[in-house]
Amino acid sequence: MRLFGTSEVIDNELVIGGVATSTLKEKYGTPLYVFDETGIDEKINTFKNHFKSRFFNTNIIYAGKAFLCSYLVKQLKSHQLSLDVVSGGELFVAKHSGFDTENIYFHGNAKTYEELEFAVRENVGTIVLDNLSEATILNNILSKSNKTQRVLLRVNPTIETDTHKYIQTSNDDSKFGMTFQEALQFLEELNHLSHLDFKGFHCHIGSQIFDSKSYFTEAKRMIEFYSDVQKEFNLKLDELNLGGGFGVYYTKGDQPLQLENFLNEYIDVLENYIREYDIDVETISIEPGRSLINDFGTTLYNVSHIKPSSHFDFLLIDGGMNDNLRPSLYEAKYTAAIANNMNANKTTDYRIAGKLCESGDVLIENIKLPKANINDTLAVPSTGAYTESMASNYNKIPRGAVVFVKDGDTHLAVERETYEDLIRNEVF
Amino acid sequence: MRLFGTSEVIDNELVIGGVATSTLKEKYGTPLYVFDETGIDEKINTFKNHFKSRFFNTNIIYAGKAFLCSYLVKQLKSHQLSLDVVSGGELFVAKHSGFDTENIYFHGNAKTYEELEFAVRENVGTIVLDNLSEATILNNILSKSNKTQRVLLRVNPTIETDTHKYIQTSNDDSKFGMTFQEALQFLEELNHLSHLDFKGFHCHIGSQIFDSKSYFTEAKRMIEFYSDVQKEFNLKLDELNLGGGFGVYYTKGDQPLQLENFLNEYIDVLENYIREYDIDVETISIEPGRSLINDFGTTLYNVSHIKPSSHFDFLLIDGGMNDNLRPSLYEAKYTAAIANNMNANKTTDYRIAGKLCESGDVLIENIKLPKANINDTLAVPSTGAYTESMASNYNKIPRGAVVFVKDGDTHLAVERETYEDLIRNEVF
Repeated sequence: MRLFGTSEVIDNELVIGGVATSTLKEKYGTPLYVFDETGIDEKINTFKNHFKSRFFNTNIIYAGKAFLCSYLVKQLKSHQLSLDVVSGGELFVAKHSGFDTENIYFHGNAKTYEELEFAVRENVGTIVLDNLSEATILNNILSKSNKTQRVLLRVNPTIETDTHKYIQTSNDDSKFGMTFQEALQFLEELNHLSHLDFKGFHCHIGSQIFDSKSYFTEAKRMIEFYSDVQKEFNLKLDELNLGGGFGVYYTKGDQPLQLENFLNEYIDVLENYIREYDIDVETISIEPGRSLINDFGTTLYNVSHIKPSSHFDFLLIDGGMNDNLRPSLYEAKYTAAIANNMNANKTTDYRIAGKLCESGDVLIENIKLPKANINDTLAVPSTGAYTESMASNYNKIPRGAVVFVKDGDTHLAVERETYEDLIRNEVF
Repeated sequence: MRLFGTSEVIDNELVIGGVATSTLKEKYGTPLYVFDETGIDEKINTFKNHFKSRFFNTNIIYAGKAFLCSYLVKQLKSHQLSLDVVSGGELFVAKHSGFDTENIYFHGNAKTYEELEFAVRENVGTIVLDNLSEATILNNILSKSNKTQRVLLRVNPTIETDTHKYIQTSNDDSKFGMTFQEALQFLEELNHLSHLDFKGFHCHIGSQIFDSKSYFTEAKRMIEFYSDVQKEFNLKLDELNLGGGFGVYYTKGDQPLQLENFLNEYIDVLENYIREYDIDVETISIEPGRSLINDFGTTLYNVSHIKPSSHFDFLLIDGGMNDNLRPSLYEAKYTAAIANNMNANKTTDYRIAGKLCESGDVLIENIKLPKANINDTLAVPSTGAYTESMASNYNKIPRGAVVFVKDGDTHLAVERETYEDLIRNEVF
């Protein structure tokens, strides 16, 4: 298991943020989502220090859908990051956590009328439009209060990437955004939508992308497009938002971009294309979500049972697809370790299966671990993104707690659900 | 769209349980899970009337993981059904709804210590053991309070079925249960576990099975096994629990068993094998979940936007993979209709996409519908099972409400979540 951030092994035990995993388990129970605050801080600084240019402003926008809670929102705020929300609910969490709505980008392919109203009421800085229907409805809402709204438009530069079809977004039949051609038509329509203050385009080529060339191709296509638009429409485009999708490490096969080098090179490429195509853009934004958070989340489980089987032993944990859907949904691969026995030889083949009543609820198909015992702690690293955020109460299992650790201190960010929580909205 | 239960079209509009879908939308908003109480009543009666024998008792056990709420639990109770729970949470819901715990079967491959303690404390009628570890822990818990617990043991008769690998459970590497051979060893161990009152075996061959032969093969294998066990161990096996998995209709390709005929034939087959193998069993149980509920759940959405695309138009709804995960998770197929325009010609090709910020969030890839308008109501039938029960707050979207309809009346069973619900467990 690769150790990220402040994770270390002390006395044969996994320690995160200076806190022993045994302490975390005892204090908060399992399943437990543990976040390494220092790790996140450092990653944010890497983004801020290396995605920086002398020729244009840069903006790091955290994609909240990867994982969002108030404690994290406050951390983002202290770093002066912007925030990408994709629903009224995410906007609500951000606002409730004291985040300046001016620094929020509201994304999504199908914002409801109520969500658009909510965004306008809360003075969200930028709404990223997906389609003409949305633009028309937003303009109507704005006209009622005689407001003007800063907007971007999502376009698809149609770049093929080699990622799971569910997380590849920038192709022809994508539900998101518009083709360049459709976008040009849209700009014609903009004249009729006088409450929209159009400031540029957003694009996003997918998720878990390990190949810098895809980003450089995207940059070229977008800047070329900006150049065309500037010529044709005589529009001042303040911002170019290039989305995210920077791949992260889950298991041995994954080779993420070395972030500092990649960001430096990305900036060079952007500066060069801007010069070459002679476009005038004030701000270039990127939207890391998973890449900012994933390395620094570790899920802790209790080993409930060990069960012999023909090809391996089953290591049965007290969680499953309700707290981490990714193996079932995307066939995502993870690694794991026995947090209370980190140094022992890995002698035994295990299949790690969850407790949900469904055959597909297998967290790791095959892994070699030290011989495990009931009540051992299983640590699954690289689970910061798209785990807690996708959690459900399937099988009526209460969702786990979220704790941040830093310099030996713990901060409970989200309490474990109780059985009572499961029936809170039932009408008796 | 096939109309199940009380669903009908009146004045061009879909009406369920005598209530117009426009009324439901107005009163409860969307997305809304609508359940047809009469349909469920009738289906329960079909199971009760046709799974009946002169030679043994029968027991219909509803598999709560398909969908569970207090209102439904009370309906099951009034029909004197038993209930299959798979977690402490499901047990809690059942108990809280006044269900007699004596009629509960506690399933699952990895029950935690706390769950086993909870089940013992609440006097759950039957615990279905999965493995020796669980049996040993349960016996220890029981010894503390000097109680005896009625138990079954889950075995795998290894029957190959042609369903999705995630929902096929009865093969060699399944995380559930034991092989026959392992079960025989287990019976040897039972002598040391004096607080367990072993009453028989449980098996379950998978889900969405359309082939009666799989069930008849399962019945033969199990009865043959009972005969072997009775001879070898001189054990009185009271109950044979054959699980569920009866396939339901989602779209045109699906051909569910004609239930009355199938159940009649199933009983004949069971009676014959029991005679042939001369086994002595008091009760045979089956566990319908999806097949009892799925036809009678309809999800209503609002059409937020319509967006042109090259091969079809996108019909963008106010829900998605957070309220119905099955298309993303299992590539499940659904049909749909415009609930406020049921009779018009289907002229237009749509892709129905959800509002979640993920390319995979597509509910129906391609469907012909009447030309749709913004604020139309989209009805997706056959969504009673594994929709609400798997719902999440992914993208921080509040979960939808659940309403039961019957004879023109509505009963709100689960209230829609609010934005406040999203942060209820956050620590500020």
